[in-house]
Amino acid sequence: MATKDFGIRDGEKAAALPHRSDAVLYFIGRIHTPWKERKDCPRNARESEAVCTVELDPRWRDGLKDVETCSHLVLLYWMDKSPRNLVLQTPGHYGVQHGTFALRSPARPNPVAMSVVKLLRVDGNRLSVVGLDCLDGTPLIDIKPYFASTDSVPDAVVGWHKSKA
Amino acid sequence: MATKDFGIRDGEKAAALPHRSDAVLYFIGRIHTPWKERKDCPRNARESEAVCTVELDPRWRDGLKDVETCSHLVLLYWMDKSPRNLVLQTPGHYGVQHGTFALRSPARPNPVAMSVVKLLRVDGNRLSVVGLDCLDGTPLIDIKPYFASTDSVPDAVVGWHKSKA
Repeated sequence: MATKDFGIRDGEKAAALPHRSDAVLYFIGRIHTPWKERKDCPRNARESEAVCTVELDPRWRDGLKDVETCSHLVLLYWMDKSPRNLVLQTPGHYGVQHGTFALRSPARPNPVAMSVVKLLRVDGNRLSVVGLDCLDGTPLIDIKPYFASTDSVPDAVVGWHKSKA
Repeated sequence: MATKDFGIRDGEKAAALPHRSDAVLYFIGRIHTPWKERKDCPRNARESEAVCTVELDPRWRDGLKDVETCSHLVLLYWMDKSPRNLVLQTPGHYGVQHGTFALRSPARPNPVAMSVVKLLRVDGNRLSVVGLDCLDGTPLIDIKPYFASTDSVPDAVVGWHKSKA
């Protein structure tokens, strides 16, 4: 039955969530973007050249030493408005059912999103970056240096997606 | 003061952890690798061609639909043996102090590791992959399709690391 935003749609399937959780996260900052509602977010981070700001909790500020030498970063953040029980999903813009782990949908057992961003500048505990598509105020979980040697696979293929092109 | 494995070393600095956590994770499976102790793990995932097995909890199995069409995946996993309070670290193999967010060290406020792996095969709820360097039994948090269009940046630079080469 179709519901607004994230509800179960035709062709979707949910699993029962585990009775207990296994680990805890600390939100270490917030991501500031121009997008206040989900419908405003770009479909794909590469579609937007918007400069976004990552504001790190001052508690962790020393952890930014040498981050300014990185051209690109991996950001992990928490998609806190997503259901966690969907295993099969039919994204509206594709209209075809896929498994959750074949999708980058925010709806997943652990809604940790990963984006590769271009770093423009570091000012104290604030980073200016390009390459995000998330809502303003999204909680930050981690910042990592992007190493082309291990993280870049230019010829990688997502077969189900390619066949749609 | 030097301690075994992950203790505070000279040139390292810890922050006070927050009093409360903000979100919970479910371990959705386990990663099986040939490495039983930290000293046995390869320094870098690209150094090893070992085939590792990702065993997904059967609860989430339907989520693997179409994953077999992906040549590469992003795996997120939990480095559950790491301290979470280090902001400055002096990794033994570099011997130079860097901020936690300029390093891929497992010691970080949220010890979520990210690896890009090559997918060899899917058998039921098991994936055979190449490109991991973690301990046998490491808890799995997420599986994502790797999209070259957004995830691959072949010319990315980590300045502090490059200058060591």
